[in-house]
Amino acid sequence: MPTFIEKPAKATKDDAPFFPDEPQGPTVVTAIPGPKSKEAVRRLDKVFDASAAVFSVDYHKSYGNYIVDVDGNVLLDVYAQIASIPVGYNNPTLLKAATSPAMASSLINRPALGNFPQNDWATILETGLLKVAPKGMNQVFTALSGADANELAYKAAFIWKRQQERGRRDADFTQEELESTMLNQEPGSPNLSIMSFKAAFHGRLFGSLSTTRSKPIHKLDIPAFDWPQCPFPAIKYPPEDHIEENQREEKRCLEEAEHIIKNYPSKVAAVIVEPIQSEGGDNHASPAFFQGLREITRRHQVLLIVDEVQTGIGATGRFWAHEHWNLSDPPDMVTFSKKAQTGGFYFGNPDIRPNKPYRLFNTWMGDPVRAILFGAIVDEIERLDLVKNTAAVGDYLYGEIEKLGNKYSGKFTNLRGKGQGTFIAFDNPRRDEFLALAKTHGINLGGCGASAVRLRPMLIFQKHHADILLGVLDKIAQEL
Amino acid sequence: MPTFIEKPAKATKDDAPFFPDEPQGPTVVTAIPGPKSKEAVRRLDKVFDASAAVFSVDYHKSYGNYIVDVDGNVLLDVYAQIASIPVGYNNPTLLKAATSPAMASSLINRPALGNFPQNDWATILETGLLKVAPKGMNQVFTALSGADANELAYKAAFIWKRQQERGRRDADFTQEELESTMLNQEPGSPNLSIMSFKAAFHGRLFGSLSTTRSKPIHKLDIPAFDWPQCPFPAIKYPPEDHIEENQREEKRCLEEAEHIIKNYPSKVAAVIVEPIQSEGGDNHASPAFFQGLREITRRHQVLLIVDEVQTGIGATGRFWAHEHWNLSDPPDMVTFSKKAQTGGFYFGNPDIRPNKPYRLFNTWMGDPVRAILFGAIVDEIERLDLVKNTAAVGDYLYGEIEKLGNKYSGKFTNLRGKGQGTFIAFDNPRRDEFLALAKTHGINLGGCGASAVRLRPMLIFQKHHADILLGVLDKIAQEL
Repeated sequence: MPTFIEKPAKATKDDAPFFPDEPQGPTVVTAIPGPKSKEAVRRLDKVFDASAAVFSVDYHKSYGNYIVDVDGNVLLDVYAQIASIPVGYNNPTLLKAATSPAMASSLINRPALGNFPQNDWATILETGLLKVAPKGMNQVFTALSGADANELAYKAAFIWKRQQERGRRDADFTQEELESTMLNQEPGSPNLSIMSFKAAFHGRLFGSLSTTRSKPIHKLDIPAFDWPQCPFPAIKYPPEDHIEENQREEKRCLEEAEHIIKNYPSKVAAVIVEPIQSEGGDNHASPAFFQGLREITRRHQVLLIVDEVQTGIGATGRFWAHEHWNLSDPPDMVTFSKKAQTGGFYFGNPDIRPNKPYRLFNTWMGDPVRAILFGAIVDEIERLDLVKNTAAVGDYLYGEIEKLGNKYSGKFTNLRGKGQGTFIAFDNPRRDEFLALAKTHGINLGGCGASAVRLRPMLIFQKHHADILLGVLDKIAQEL
Repeated sequence: MPTFIEKPAKATKDDAPFFPDEPQGPTVVTAIPGPKSKEAVRRLDKVFDASAAVFSVDYHKSYGNYIVDVDGNVLLDVYAQIASIPVGYNNPTLLKAATSPAMASSLINRPALGNFPQNDWATILETGLLKVAPKGMNQVFTALSGADANELAYKAAFIWKRQQERGRRDADFTQEELESTMLNQEPGSPNLSIMSFKAAFHGRLFGSLSTTRSKPIHKLDIPAFDWPQCPFPAIKYPPEDHIEENQREEKRCLEEAEHIIKNYPSKVAAVIVEPIQSEGGDNHASPAFFQGLREITRRHQVLLIVDEVQTGIGATGRFWAHEHWNLSDPPDMVTFSKKAQTGGFYFGNPDIRPNKPYRLFNTWMGDPVRAILFGAIVDEIERLDLVKNTAAVGDYLYGEIEKLGNKYSGKFTNLRGKGQGTFIAFDNPRRDEFLALAKTHGINLGGCGASAVRLRPMLIFQKHHADILLGVLDKIAQEL
């Protein structure tokens, strides 16, 4: 599908390119955005809010790890559409799935999956989404995005909590509940809450936005539920030099979590947490912290929802980031989206499923089109052993950036993501200039939090790509 | 694509079938659901909540107006996946779009449209969605579903309202706003509201669910915002026999709307209304009522959002149902989904677009795949002149059901939808048995509200399909 075929990138035996016809490296021919990008964005902005557009993309020409803009600039893409492209642009395995009769039928005969499921829906789930379900989970609610997935999980948590309080799964609603909920009042519309963490990001719909705490611009002027937030550990880096301090900090946050759960005026039905706070600045915590959170939530009969929208699907060197935690018992729900190209939540406990039909329901309940694509993504991850690749390339990348940090003082600070695949970030005091400079050198990079550069390559990012990135990071450190 | 080709249905000159190879009529070979359906649903239910499944569908065999289940039953589909299939199963025009290179690229290279729009995104919008934009509207925010569309519209309304209150579009946020919104508190997270109507349905996410007032089962156990609801006119049928009474009722509701807008503790930023309350029971109001609502909202600087998720895209004999109202100035936003196979909202006033980037933003901001398909749907509607078809068939159908109502007293009561295309409903005291009987006669029908049978055929529903439906309605009336 790419219109240019360049010589294969040089590769060692261990680094044979997954896509031999990928460009050999970036090519920058204009400022970015270039004149054609600017014109395309200006035209688009007349009918569609393009105020956040970075550049206009020719996706037909983009290939593998390389994104091509309308001015002909070829950039190594280490941001991947806000961390959402899993296995490369114009991936041939995905193309095959996209042009299959099953895909065509799902595109033009979109079912209301709750009422009129297609006869192969169970098979699509079992051979795709459920094949990679987190340990302890064998059921899924499908959704359309990460925010949608989280909100479905919240609704499931509220329904579960009230069923627990009623004591019997099949308990009937009272007349008072039936009437008050139509007025948005208690007890039918209960004053329950979801606890999230400071700097968390869980989406931008009204429930999910009430749990998002990363930046004011996401939330300003939008009404929100009075739900509690808990401090997330402010870890000092490198962690091995701050062991006791970090332990104290995590203990403090866990105590605060328990205090909120016990005392917050609107009773907490569930806690939602990202394995690594991504939008909020790539903030990590130790497995012990998450084990502690699991214990506290169990103790107080509060559900634990792990938001793997950004961390899931291999990016941390495990298929799910929470596999790093070695929990004694699994989270209650795990939400996913982005690299899955669809959304939803997994669960294992049958009590999470509401006791009556039409409680967690909507017209489409997901999209088979995107579920079929997720199946192809899973196939491609298995075929190329991409989780292993990401773990190995991540280790290499982390080690090399650590060296850059030693070489250039203050330019790659708070390096984080050791042993977490390519889910790596560091701080730079002139972060926005850093990102702009990267583009002039042919690297598309993203930021997060106040001063972090976050690496979010695809799972097909290999050592030879890492070397190109590292060369540019070195150049920027000299220039900035 | 259908595996069975039957003789073309008989047709008069004016009723030449759009799809000559459609089945000639329904075929029922088992109880519905049949044994294979039951088995498929039982299997699916192990991994996916199938508690609301009606039957398991073979979409490869379904064609035009006919849905085929896994037991081989061929049903005339007058429900169309909860009113969401526009131009028939396996429509050849849609199949062509679904198998195009543009579709394949959009499937496998899903862009973050806000940051990295594809170079043909403006063209896709201009030749599809925007070609059918309601009068006075030339911009669109794309979304993933009807609920998502409504919540984006609510967010836009809240942001607009606060900008109006600040007096200047470019006014900066105060430090207090920036800090309080991170705590979900005023003034950064303001106590504003959306007013909706009793029996309304606007979706099931947390903001949209707070405006949904159709059935307790949608809302029970889910926290909700304390937002106001206004009575929707309880019209008496047939309207021509209750002119003064209905006028009084509409006046009462408009007065109540104005009273709420002036007095509700959480200031109303926008009013959302369906042209016909669909899920809530197919409740109609007159153009005068909506004109009055437009006047009141203008007078109090409150936005008017028209939810055309179910009524839009031709079903009422106009492309948009609110065209029936002859408003002096257009609504502020019109939301759409279902038959569009995607979602979003249209607007014209540039002040509706937030003043800064990243305020109405999310990772994907819609899906080009579904936008391309909407473009093909628009082409098909134009090619076959389907809005005109729906108006004509609807008039015929309404007239014939009126006759049935006279023939069978009490069985087709409160007939509604005159002059509203095929958007027709009536009440039957034994509605659920009515719907079940319809299936035994090969008609897939849906209900709404407490006792309504709602007709939601596709836009390719013709006179000869109407005659099959009418024959079955007559049979049911005799049997029930």
